[in-house]
Amino acid sequence: MPRISILRSRVLGFPGRMAAAREPQLVQPPKGTRDFKPEQMMVRKRVFGIVSKVFEQHGAVSLDTPVFELRETLTGKYGEDSKLIYNLEDQGGQLLSLRYDLTVPFARYLASNKVTSMKRYQIGKVYRRDNPSRGRYREFYQCDFDIAGQFPAMIADAEVIKVVVELLDSLDVGDYQVKVNHRKLLDLVLASCGVPEDKFKSICSAIDKLDKSPWDKVRTEMVEEKGLSPEVADKVGEQVSKKGNATDMLAYLNAYLGESQNATEVLEGMETLFGFLEAGNCLHRVVFDLSLARGLDYYTGVIFEAVFTGSTQVGSIAAGGRYDNLVSMFGGKEVPVVGLSLGIERVLLILEEREKANKVARTKETQVLILYLGKNMHKQAFRLASELWAASLNVEFDAIATSKLKNKLDMAGKSFIPFVVVVGEDEEKKGVVQLKEIVVKKSQEEENKQKEEIPRNELAKTILSRLQK
Amino acid sequence: MPRISILRSRVLGFPGRMAAAREPQLVQPPKGTRDFKPEQMMVRKRVFGIVSKVFEQHGAVSLDTPVFELRETLTGKYGEDSKLIYNLEDQGGQLLSLRYDLTVPFARYLASNKVTSMKRYQIGKVYRRDNPSRGRYREFYQCDFDIAGQFPAMIADAEVIKVVVELLDSLDVGDYQVKVNHRKLLDLVLASCGVPEDKFKSICSAIDKLDKSPWDKVRTEMVEEKGLSPEVADKVGEQVSKKGNATDMLAYLNAYLGESQNATEVLEGMETLFGFLEAGNCLHRVVFDLSLARGLDYYTGVIFEAVFTGSTQVGSIAAGGRYDNLVSMFGGKEVPVVGLSLGIERVLLILEEREKANKVARTKETQVLILYLGKNMHKQAFRLASELWAASLNVEFDAIATSKLKNKLDMAGKSFIPFVVVVGEDEEKKGVVQLKEIVVKKSQEEENKQKEEIPRNELAKTILSRLQK
Repeated sequence: MPRISILRSRVLGFPGRMAAAREPQLVQPPKGTRDFKPEQMMVRKRVFGIVSKVFEQHGAVSLDTPVFELRETLTGKYGEDSKLIYNLEDQGGQLLSLRYDLTVPFARYLASNKVTSMKRYQIGKVYRRDNPSRGRYREFYQCDFDIAGQFPAMIADAEVIKVVVELLDSLDVGDYQVKVNHRKLLDLVLASCGVPEDKFKSICSAIDKLDKSPWDKVRTEMVEEKGLSPEVADKVGEQVSKKGNATDMLAYLNAYLGESQNATEVLEGMETLFGFLEAGNCLHRVVFDLSLARGLDYYTGVIFEAVFTGSTQVGSIAAGGRYDNLVSMFGGKEVPVVGLSLGIERVLLILEEREKANKVARTKETQVLILYLGKNMHKQAFRLASELWAASLNVEFDAIATSKLKNKLDMAGKSFIPFVVVVGEDEEKKGVVQLKEIVVKKSQEEENKQKEEIPRNELAKTILSRLQK
Repeated sequence: MPRISILRSRVLGFPGRMAAAREPQLVQPPKGTRDFKPEQMMVRKRVFGIVSKVFEQHGAVSLDTPVFELRETLTGKYGEDSKLIYNLEDQGGQLLSLRYDLTVPFARYLASNKVTSMKRYQIGKVYRRDNPSRGRYREFYQCDFDIAGQFPAMIADAEVIKVVVELLDSLDVGDYQVKVNHRKLLDLVLASCGVPEDKFKSICSAIDKLDKSPWDKVRTEMVEEKGLSPEVADKVGEQVSKKGNATDMLAYLNAYLGESQNATEVLEGMETLFGFLEAGNCLHRVVFDLSLARGLDYYTGVIFEAVFTGSTQVGSIAAGGRYDNLVSMFGGKEVPVVGLSLGIERVLLILEEREKANKVARTKETQVLILYLGKNMHKQAFRLASELWAASLNVEFDAIATSKLKNKLDMAGKSFIPFVVVVGEDEEKKGVVQLKEIVVKKSQEEENKQKEEIPRNELAKTILSRLQK
């Protein structure tokens, strides 16, 4: 009893606590989403620039689709993951959902516009009601590149895998390999183990979990949930453990699957693919891996997934494959498509960390800081700034007391602003300015490299010519 | 009766109609939304580049916020237009809505992160369940620039209006003017006409309709819906018809409003603003217009709106103002902010039309088209393409029958591809390629400027050096 009254008096009596309790709670962005701050935006802009450049190197055009689609467009495309789709409220009119990836909207676009041949890229946010506690975001960027149309066997598939390799090399995020497999090959292997055809998809989606779960657990799922006999499950387990380089795996599979027409067709296709990848100088990044299954229902041919192999980073970083039946699901002709999706968030995380470590946190592009000495000189500062803006320079300005000059110069150095223009009463009368060039040293301290008097009407020209050097 | 049977037999009997009925309907994007096609994306990329450049010239940092916010964040910010907000379905967890503009998310960001000073820009899509039949889209881009923080009176307001002028001049979309007014001035004018203080907001929102509705209709709304006496309404009508240049309007208002302290403060503020705009060389674009009211509730000071004055284009193209109380609504300190929002869709429409008229519909960045003569030469073409990709060139490739060469050269010309590399059996053996430089004439026909034999290992270097010229 006495304890309670003490507690109560504490809660009611401490002015500090009361003040804290009165402070209103700050509104935050929704669970699983983030604001991207200026220093993150700088990294993002640079990375999206690199990614777009690679896509454009391959002749891709850019496309943008709405952030939501008709709900029926997304229905039945994502298997078990459909429960993660965000629906919009029924406010009258059409039923809508936020896009879950960029692949289905692209297929819908091809159908809507009766396009049968297109190489396109799209960089945009997608939405999944996933569990944020697993480190996953509910709003995140994907970068997609797809080749739609009829082409000679495997040439588009090879180009897409080449693009994955170029992306990961350009982004320079660490060691990786590209696992490659073929949906029809997986079916043949499953058949050879005695898996009935009607269980192919469900067994595939169990195999897909092998990168996160141990074999024992996946085996239990196959036997207890999906009704495979233990013997068949063990055979499947043995086969999907096979992986290696193209030559060895082709030799193994030719021997293992024998000479059925289906097997020969698929294996010849893979040989053609590896031939292209060798010609494209990227075969050394490829591992032929029979455990690669890819969860999504719509794949029909080659599938692939790029994974980190370094010690610090784990998991998938890009993935994709061939989906030849998706476009016709939207009422159009069948249009064969093969494509990739780069999961850029993990790449961005790595690069943001690296920039932070380098203390290179430039967040803006300002080239000139104008400082007028004298607190009431804003109009003069604004006039001079306007002259430099008109010369296409990036300019900030301020009117300050002389005592604040040192602070402002420090700020310029930390913000990577290369030029500071100082104007006092004397300079204003004489029609000149003081120009200082800031040199940023690695320690983030700055020094005045130069302090020169420049005629005001030559200022823009002087700065522009020095920036060009 | 006979008519009915004829009609029925027509519907059932016409094979043409039946075929049309059997053809599955193509899925389209949701009502009020669009796919942005490659030729539109090229214009958009260029325009967003120009807009970002202007924002960065003023030292703004870039920010991105989630496409949805907590529903409570948007509640009570948009007055009558709140009914246009898209809500997400309640699927468990937080209640969410799609963002309606970029201003409220920015204010929420400042509060969430306790930021009290920031100059930021954001280019992003916003969502409004408006009536698409009025030519409005439900998903469209806005480009926002805002200055948050304590600064000497009117300097930030002036910079924001300067940015509007720079944007519209850089985009070169036609004649325009920037209407400027002040919320507090409008209140003083309403008071002087005898409008009771509790009707200021509702009368403001009636005045806001003057750019679309004639005075008679607005007057009826004031009298019949909002309970103003006809005499007061007529006085308001007389005052809000006043507009003109800064000097004349200040003289008029000084005389009309007299020397109350409130009036003197607001008018001195406007004088300071116009002084800055004169120093910034943009006062000639400004009209002081007492009919400008701006519909949104959150404005507290200077308000402005840029409108086309040319004959072909009408309506608002950029707008904004000062909102000093919005941030504190999210539980943070009061942070004064002034900002602009550029309604980029109309600008894009104008520029897309212009590009179409110029027949400049470049949609991709390809620099080199590789053509191997011989239908089975894809591997060789892929190898050569890979060599050029490695040299950072933008390359497409194909293996074709000789008979198709003319077609492909035409295509290169139409796609603005400057170089075509042709390789036949002879060239492959000799280790050379044929290099053609395509010159695009205005008629969109191409000619072969040159056809040279180049050693294969000098190809990348040769093309790179010519592109630099």
